[in-house]
Amino acid sequence: MGLNGDERAAPLSGAGTMLRMIRDGEAVTRADLARRTGLARSTVSHRIEALLASRLVYEAGASVSSGGRRPTVLAFNEDAGVILAADLGATHTRVAVSNLGATLLGELTFDMDIAEGPEPVLTRTEECFAALLAEIGRTPADVRGIGLGVPGPVSFTGGQPVKPPIMPGWDGFSIPSWLAGPYDAPVLVDNDVNVMAFGEQRIHWRSVEHLLFVKVGTGIGCGIIASGRVHRGPQGAAGDIGHIHLSGHDEVICWCGNVGCLEAVAGGRALARRLAQAGHDVQDSRGVVRLAASGNTDAIRMVRESGRRLGEVLASCVSFFNPAVIVLGGDLAETHDQILAGVREVVFQRSLPLATRDLRIVRTRLGDRAGVIGAALMVIEHVLEPDAVDRAINVP
Amino acid sequence: MGLNGDERAAPLSGAGTMLRMIRDGEAVTRADLARRTGLARSTVSHRIEALLASRLVYEAGASVSSGGRRPTVLAFNEDAGVILAADLGATHTRVAVSNLGATLLGELTFDMDIAEGPEPVLTRTEECFAALLAEIGRTPADVRGIGLGVPGPVSFTGGQPVKPPIMPGWDGFSIPSWLAGPYDAPVLVDNDVNVMAFGEQRIHWRSVEHLLFVKVGTGIGCGIIASGRVHRGPQGAAGDIGHIHLSGHDEVICWCGNVGCLEAVAGGRALARRLAQAGHDVQDSRGVVRLAASGNTDAIRMVRESGRRLGEVLASCVSFFNPAVIVLGGDLAETHDQILAGVREVVFQRSLPLATRDLRIVRTRLGDRAGVIGAALMVIEHVLEPDAVDRAINVP
Repeated sequence: MGLNGDERAAPLSGAGTMLRMIRDGEAVTRADLARRTGLARSTVSHRIEALLASRLVYEAGASVSSGGRRPTVLAFNEDAGVILAADLGATHTRVAVSNLGATLLGELTFDMDIAEGPEPVLTRTEECFAALLAEIGRTPADVRGIGLGVPGPVSFTGGQPVKPPIMPGWDGFSIPSWLAGPYDAPVLVDNDVNVMAFGEQRIHWRSVEHLLFVKVGTGIGCGIIASGRVHRGPQGAAGDIGHIHLSGHDEVICWCGNVGCLEAVAGGRALARRLAQAGHDVQDSRGVVRLAASGNTDAIRMVRESGRRLGEVLASCVSFFNPAVIVLGGDLAETHDQILAGVREVVFQRSLPLATRDLRIVRTRLGDRAGVIGAALMVIEHVLEPDAVDRAINVP
Repeated sequence: MGLNGDERAAPLSGAGTMLRMIRDGEAVTRADLARRTGLARSTVSHRIEALLASRLVYEAGASVSSGGRRPTVLAFNEDAGVILAADLGATHTRVAVSNLGATLLGELTFDMDIAEGPEPVLTRTEECFAALLAEIGRTPADVRGIGLGVPGPVSFTGGQPVKPPIMPGWDGFSIPSWLAGPYDAPVLVDNDVNVMAFGEQRIHWRSVEHLLFVKVGTGIGCGIIASGRVHRGPQGAAGDIGHIHLSGHDEVICWCGNVGCLEAVAGGRALARRLAQAGHDVQDSRGVVRLAASGNTDAIRMVRESGRRLGEVLASCVSFFNPAVIVLGGDLAETHDQILAGVREVVFQRSLPLATRDLRIVRTRLGDRAGVIGAALMVIEHVLEPDAVDRAINVP
């Protein structure tokens, strides 16, 4: 037995591919799977047995159609394991546990300083992972993967930060080796805005191929989705728009050593410093947000102006990249429409009509969960990718 | 007969995939192909018969290895057909014919004005195609595909220019319908810098995934290769860096309706106008090149300054996109090192060290043939893509 004449159907033959078809609702009975893949019923049954044994698939009951014996409907078991996810920021971290459908089952946040270095920060993160697992009654053996977003460039293949400017002590540190510890599961590490972009695109903009996620918080960064994939660049440095030069601001010195960088002019840290100098009780980007929300005109004007400066840079990105959607997130953009308004004002004024014809500039819908949801989704796609499933359940 | 236990080898079962393996040297005998694909020898032989009949493959003789009867080595026949390619510029067009290995077999150039509209320009192009075919002793039946680059945004799926600013009369014009005429072959149309980027990457930077090709001629445009694929954006407008705003030049009005656009400040047309105003006998970007090459300091200084202004914009693109290679092409960049020097000066000064650590900024190696070679290659990949081959040679 084997192929049924249409050998081009054969690429769809592995158990992992069958899992994908079941998840997508493309084929949910053994008969449909046999038809769709061109494989013999016996081969399909063999694969499905392996998927049932792995608990990734369960029998959801009989289908309603067809005469005679009604075939069993197969379904993806979102609770066959859990994913641990963390979004490490400059000053606070969010830790979460999700099922295999990226539904959050528990979460925790804690304040910290990323500059303390990897071991204290990851120790706290790991403690939170353990606490969350205990809280939902799961064990390390249930963990299918771990995903982290960190606020700096990352070598994605190695899971190592690469010269991350605001993360002293993390350069080259292998986060996967450190975190894997009690878990027999892959650890994926990426830049924080990359996982946010990924989460937002996969959940809310599935049909959009080219998307930017811009985080306006303490600093300013951008995650890029090109053709549905995260674009990281050879150094993992793509999206680092915080250090694009703004003209007319050469008096502003940036910590990177250049002058007039977007982040030094319009980031949350810069705004907080200027508001503090003007006598306001503001320490960080969250303080800026609070002051603006309280109706303070200095703060509101400054946030709007930040939106315009960001708009100048994004207008160039729109001309260069022609995204379909720009999602704004981060403290400053989430809590205040002034950033959105300022960005729209300048982008639609500056970019060519063709590139902005169908462009949408919106606020994040995942909000401050974009990071953990994106990190979880990235891990889920990785572990449920057909070849990975074939390897994991060990079907020849 | 059918699969041999390792069904994951099955994706490699079609004749098109076997052709790819033969082209890449991955498997060049029937026995190797059977081993590599996991298909029965009889199935492999059947597929190879079809490929031999199509002339895409030929028997290149006996291999040197192994005892007993020596297996026949199969080879890709680059002369199984020809590709017609054209690179339409604002003021001149290059037309070429290549074999299936993208080796040019003949070429012609002619001066024209793209603003004359599609019918006169495409009529000339088509006459050149016919003349080139006759010259090399081939007929329309030998043509496997046609590729065109045009100086404006293109809807790639429809082969139609979309609101192309310097191509009046071309908006929405279906170039494939018009050109297909005597040929039973697909027609691919793309933006000129996209095909140049594609050609340069496929020929000279095969191992580089992320590359920019910047054309500095009459205007300024950029082709983007992301993860080895042309990034066009939803409107086909990606790479339109000529209208990114340069600060400090708001007195320069661009034909697009905005002020201070890169192209209006630093493009060949702008330089020609300024040199003419200064009393030099210069009409267009080629005139600028000639004047600079003659040692005229006004022209040299102006070209260097153009390089710096282009460098400002590319520094932003480097921070945003993190390319591994930037290739400079077009009249101005090809014939003079001042553009390259100016770009390097500013990009390496302005961008973050991480993004420029391994960045290479180089001149085009394909030169003024980048367009036709890129267009030919794009068509070759399209018609030799495994599914396309399976359909074309009609193997079930």
